[in-house]
Amino acid sequence: SRSFRIVVLPGDGIGPEVVGQAAQVLETVSKASSDFELKLESHEFGGCAIDAHGEPLPPSTLKACQEADAILMGSIGGPKWGVNAKVRPEPGLLTLRKTLGLYANIRPANLASDSLLDLSPLRPEIARGVNIIVVRELIGGLYFGTRKEQDIAPDLDTAWDTMIYSVSEVQRITRVAARIAMASNPPLEIHSVDKANVLASSRLWRKVVTETLTNEFPKVKLHHQLVDSAAMFIVANPLKLNGIILTENLFGDILSDQTSVIPGSLGLLPSASLAGAPSAPSANFKPTTGLYEPIHGSAPDIAGKGIANPIGTILSAALLLRYSLGLEKPAKAIEDAVRKVLDAPEKGGYGLRTGDLGGDAGTEEIGAKIIEVL
Amino acid sequence: SRSFRIVVLPGDGIGPEVVGQAAQVLETVSKASSDFELKLESHEFGGCAIDAHGEPLPPSTLKACQEADAILMGSIGGPKWGVNAKVRPEPGLLTLRKTLGLYANIRPANLASDSLLDLSPLRPEIARGVNIIVVRELIGGLYFGTRKEQDIAPDLDTAWDTMIYSVSEVQRITRVAARIAMASNPPLEIHSVDKANVLASSRLWRKVVTETLTNEFPKVKLHHQLVDSAAMFIVANPLKLNGIILTENLFGDILSDQTSVIPGSLGLLPSASLAGAPSAPSANFKPTTGLYEPIHGSAPDIAGKGIANPIGTILSAALLLRYSLGLEKPAKAIEDAVRKVLDAPEKGGYGLRTGDLGGDAGTEEIGAKIIEVL
Ligand SMILES: CC(C)[C@H](C(=O)O)[C@@H](O)C(=O)O
Ligand SMILES: CC(C)[C@H](C(=O)O)[C@@H](O)C(=O)O
Repeated sequence: SRSFRIVVLPGDGIGPEVVGQAAQVLETVSKASSDFELKLESHEFGGCAIDAHGEPLPPSTLKACQEADAILMGSIGGPKWGVNAKVRPEPGLLTLRKTLGLYANIRPANLASDSLLDLSPLRPEIARGVNIIVVRELIGGLYFGTRKEQDIAPDLDTAWDTMIYSVSEVQRITRVAARIAMASNPPLEIHSVDKANVLASSRLWRKVVTETLTNEFPKVKLHHQLVDSAAMFIVANPLKLNGIILTENLFGDILSDQTSVIPGSLGLLPSASLAGAPSAPSANFKPTTGLYEPIHGSAPDIAGKGIANPIGTILSAALLLRYSLGLEKPAKAIEDAVRKVLDAPEKGGYGLRTGDLGGDAGTEEIGAKIIEVL
Repeated sequence: SRSFRIVVLPGDGIGPEVVGQAAQVLETVSKASSDFELKLESHEFGGCAIDAHGEPLPPSTLKACQEADAILMGSIGGPKWGVNAKVRPEPGLLTLRKTLGLYANIRPANLASDSLLDLSPLRPEIARGVNIIVVRELIGGLYFGTRKEQDIAPDLDTAWDTMIYSVSEVQRITRVAARIAMASNPPLEIHSVDKANVLASSRLWRKVVTETLTNEFPKVKLHHQLVDSAAMFIVANPLKLNGIILTENLFGDILSDQTSVIPGSLGLLPSASLAGAPSAPSANFKPTTGLYEPIHGSAPDIAGKGIANPIGTILSAALLLRYSLGLEKPAKAIEDAVRKVLDAPEKGGYGLRTGDLGGDAGTEEIGAKIIEVL
């Protein structure tokens, strides 16, 4: 049986609690199968690593991540390492992304269960049926271009950052979006988002996305949206963007967060950051290093109380199985189990809810029920 | 009596129709007063100017704008001058903003009448009471920084843009936001939006906004938000951002459009772009050049049908009177008249609605009724 090395980064705040449940889910699917074995090992990352080692990403953690088949993360940060702290967790995250080459951030936003429609801030008739996967370029653009801080020569009174993209950077993220699109039948439509009426980097983006899809994935339907219009549609008519939103790093940061509030709780949503295009689960599956994490933050206000929602992390573990290990079956099984735990009893589910969903179930209770269903 | 020169730029699509009504409203308040006189003159700008002169901003139009006390614009652009056209309208708009030094874009978003709550894509309990003024820096940042297109040396395969801000650029836009905040009692709160956890230009932004308000406007309460969180709050809990959102050019482009869908129709919302901080209406009023326009586009699909909503343009004319001419009384009178025309009959209003608001009133009918109420 194949053996996979999974690095677990619990992080800060509610991170250890939610990752704890997701790790148990992974142990469960591992034990249930004779085809593969998952070996989990925990490392320090984020604020806890700053406290213990003076830096958010200690060399031992980075090394373990580099050698891992996949990484499962909780959440990092908190007021203790806030804006005015000398050493902050975020640079550790950016270094990890860059060093591992995690250029493709994938964030699905949909209602895990129709019974959650009432939690959306949008009117039900607008939110119903939303199913958007944001594919965000993660290691280019303004995040990693040359920059100059204020008080640095030659011009002490200005600061600047560079939004830069190369043809190959745009090609590879386009291929990731196209592979995900092609995994559905009919293929998902791609909405490429840019600001080509103003920015040179966006004109390159639009041209390369168009050429790559036309030449390599002619079956995938492509639309272009300006970022300001896209931000309007996500609120006023998100169904129009169903399918895939493909965009650069900063636009993706903004639009993926905006999209993620539609389902009503950040606690439900997973994410994947990949170093390559996911390949179809098959005999030829090509593994891809990936970092998997819920999209919510470390929520220091509820940390340690056992009430955080572990579902975003558990669904991230499902994405880990699918994208990095090619194990579609257990991935799907986890997603089905989550739906059953959330669905209303009238629909054959258990209707369990943590506080963010208006209920009073605890972190462990949710995790245990998902494992029971599995 | 003082005389003011108002340049009118009807533009393309529904522009001439909606500007026509707003111009009549301005003529009406001009005739009603013995204190001031408004002299309106029309010039070509946008797609129609491309057709007539080969460029969106002919020198004669620019000259007229430079000599005007204020400018009222309709909307520009359309499929005829779309992405693949050789000459496009947008550069004309950017040149006009830059040449006139219109660094402060002001976009209020609120429900002109409570009877419109049902049009919001947000649940009524989330949309009710939203009252956000977006103050966007308009001639700096990525829009006007150095850029390099693809296929230009030295690196043919990359394209880039620069997000650059200077201390004085951030100071002056902060003062505009503060002046608007201080015009209310108690002062509005300012939510400054940046991405200071990643960008050097945002760190300068945050520092200068903080210093300027602390030193010059200590009564104004200041909050900082990261742009990704702000994009979430605007959907999930916009009341949290009530007051002023103060942000740089590109973030402002995205967030102001996002905010503007909350009231349910783009047709209702005005905007002002100013070359200075608005001064309080008083004996010492200092005039400020400004460009005033509805936030909606040229809507070619309904152009020429007499069904476009003129209210965004009419409310822009009210802002023109307030910010550029210091005429608070007629500005307020126009806003009150608009509310009365929109309010339901049970509330003492006329309940008139154009198609975008679910009714069947025509452009002229709305304009005429507003003038009648005035
Ligand atoms: C923490 C921050 C640097 C990060 C980003 O902007 O990429 C976060 O917002 C995210 O989206 O993962
Ligand atoms: C037309 C375009 C260049 C412009 C901008 O991005 O500023 C528009 O979106 C706006 O907000 O006025």
